[in-house]
Amino acid sequence: MTTALVHKPLVRVLAGVQEPIPPVWLMRQAGRYLPEYRRIRAEADSFLDLCFNPERAAEVTLQPIRRFGFDAAILFSDILVVPHVLGQRVTFDDGEGPRLEPIGDPSAFRMLARELDHGRLEPVYEAISLVKRELPATVALLGFCGAPWTLATYMIAGGGKRDQIPARLFAYRFPEAFAELIDLLVRASAAYLIQQFAAGVDAVQIFDTWAGVLPSAEFHKWCVEPCARIVAAVRERVPEARIIGFPRGAGTGLEFYLETVAIDAIGLDWTVDPVFARDRIQPRRPIQGNLDPLALLIGGAALDCAIDGVLAAFSKGPFIFNLGHGVLPDTPIAHIERLVARVRGAAARG
Amino acid sequence: MTTALVHKPLVRVLAGVQEPIPPVWLMRQAGRYLPEYRRIRAEADSFLDLCFNPERAAEVTLQPIRRFGFDAAILFSDILVVPHVLGQRVTFDDGEGPRLEPIGDPSAFRMLARELDHGRLEPVYEAISLVKRELPATVALLGFCGAPWTLATYMIAGGGKRDQIPARLFAYRFPEAFAELIDLLVRASAAYLIQQFAAGVDAVQIFDTWAGVLPSAEFHKWCVEPCARIVAAVRERVPEARIIGFPRGAGTGLEFYLETVAIDAIGLDWTVDPVFARDRIQPRRPIQGNLDPLALLIGGAALDCAIDGVLAAFSKGPFIFNLGHGVLPDTPIAHIERLVARVRGAAARG
Repeated sequence: MTTALVHKPLVRVLAGVQEPIPPVWLMRQAGRYLPEYRRIRAEADSFLDLCFNPERAAEVTLQPIRRFGFDAAILFSDILVVPHVLGQRVTFDDGEGPRLEPIGDPSAFRMLARELDHGRLEPVYEAISLVKRELPATVALLGFCGAPWTLATYMIAGGGKRDQIPARLFAYRFPEAFAELIDLLVRASAAYLIQQFAAGVDAVQIFDTWAGVLPSAEFHKWCVEPCARIVAAVRERVPEARIIGFPRGAGTGLEFYLETVAIDAIGLDWTVDPVFARDRIQPRRPIQGNLDPLALLIGGAALDCAIDGVLAAFSKGPFIFNLGHGVLPDTPIAHIERLVARVRGAAARG
Repeated sequence: MTTALVHKPLVRVLAGVQEPIPPVWLMRQAGRYLPEYRRIRAEADSFLDLCFNPERAAEVTLQPIRRFGFDAAILFSDILVVPHVLGQRVTFDDGEGPRLEPIGDPSAFRMLARELDHGRLEPVYEAISLVKRELPATVALLGFCGAPWTLATYMIAGGGKRDQIPARLFAYRFPEAFAELIDLLVRASAAYLIQQFAAGVDAVQIFDTWAGVLPSAEFHKWCVEPCARIVAAVRERVPEARIIGFPRGAGTGLEFYLETVAIDAIGLDWTVDPVFARDRIQPRRPIQGNLDPLALLIGGAALDCAIDGVLAAFSKGPFIFNLGHGVLPDTPIAHIERLVARVRGAAARG
């Protein structure tokens, strides 16, 4: 870990260091917007086949590093491999979101395994080892998982619905069964992250994409506490584990999240007020974020202006440059090149 | 106005007074969940016919007051009457959201009128006068409009899309044309609210349903500043106008909104953290909100617990009890009766 701290800017920031040039990577940096990704994707039978083929998953993980020289590679996979391995039917149609056989009532939980079968996840861990071997020494390798609440919303609704109403209703109607599902996902996610560290990732990110749709009491119970338990469980086995939290949409709940979840850095979505974040978040924890993915799609002056705004807000403290959500599939490659050059150039000048 | 202050609890709260029992009303309290509404709706040819028929609009405005004894009636109408009267084609299909002929590019603005034709809105103002006549003296009458950003998102996308991406893209691509559209909507909305006050409303609410999808700079430019200009324009003509802002999803931007928009009270959506709101919002402005509409749909212990949480958070200061978003169509009437009894009973006991 000490060697990593010396060489990898992203890992240094996670340790609380302010880097002169902020490390940069982008959520969903491996994906459909890249022609080299589409070529590999076309060779796989399905999206999940791609995730579970170590050579191909490693290859698409490395593609954006070769092309853009990002400071971190993030394992190519999907948060829904966990429900998939637990026994729920998951499919991905190109151009649409994921589809799951929805869990309509508590009895449907019985079909799920009670713990994660690491044997079935071996290809994922193998992909990590393969990437690790190829990655430049200064580039961090990130693993990840979905937060239990976000996984549960997809498992219950069968996909992404407006404000994830089906899962919210389920949690009100069947609080005990819902708590059981969350417990299962906490245990499975912690075990999954521990194995990712064992396979060689430098840090992990917990994606809570749907953290923003809950009332405060439910946000505490279903988002924050389960994430806190995952972090504690991972640290018990991997004391120096570096962990980034990304509670998208948490808004006025961000401070409570930070007080409760012992993460090393917090990812901010594109809507978070930079004055709020600089004054109340960054003094407590390094920030990662939060460029609007639409500004990256649009490019030109709008992109430059948005990049400069993010840098002005956060580069006076420990900071990792990223988007506030994933790269959109139609994003031109030239815009990403422009982003990387501007972040590094502006920081070097500033 | 002075008389109103004496008699109407809701108007007193808007003046900064803490009422011993918080006044209560619910967003979308007139609507499909009421059988008496569905009867009147069935008599009208379309949803817009209902909005533009003074007798019917007045009747459905009054129905929830008769049934539940709320402390405020809100004019039955829709925020999209403004684009409709400006010349955009708007339809409402039962059970689905509104549909508009989308504005795909700046040239499409030319079909819009340059100002609001109050003649076409006469039925709305007449409905206000009719309600006014029937309303108990202690019950406030609220008018409303949609905020310019929210109206623009519907006008450009043709409806509600995830994160209102079409309007956000349009604003990046055509910032000058978009600013023109916002200016038109600021002028039209201010004129509309001024006429609502002239017709007899006690206060108005500005609904910014989609305030939560923008990055900070765009939130300032397209949500906050236009709302501030509407409030200033209304106050110029109606100095004692009482105005409630409802920037749904504003999250970490709520404080900037409050500093910039000279509203009398702020409506909070169901996701706002109560500790944050009690400590940083309520000392500056009365709060309205923020029960989860799903808790009202579910009823029982979940509803009681959610009501008590909202009361515990906010009833030590100026406060109007409301939902954090509109009543859902499947909400049982008994749950609303339970809510009103509990809010008034708990407050009387407490």
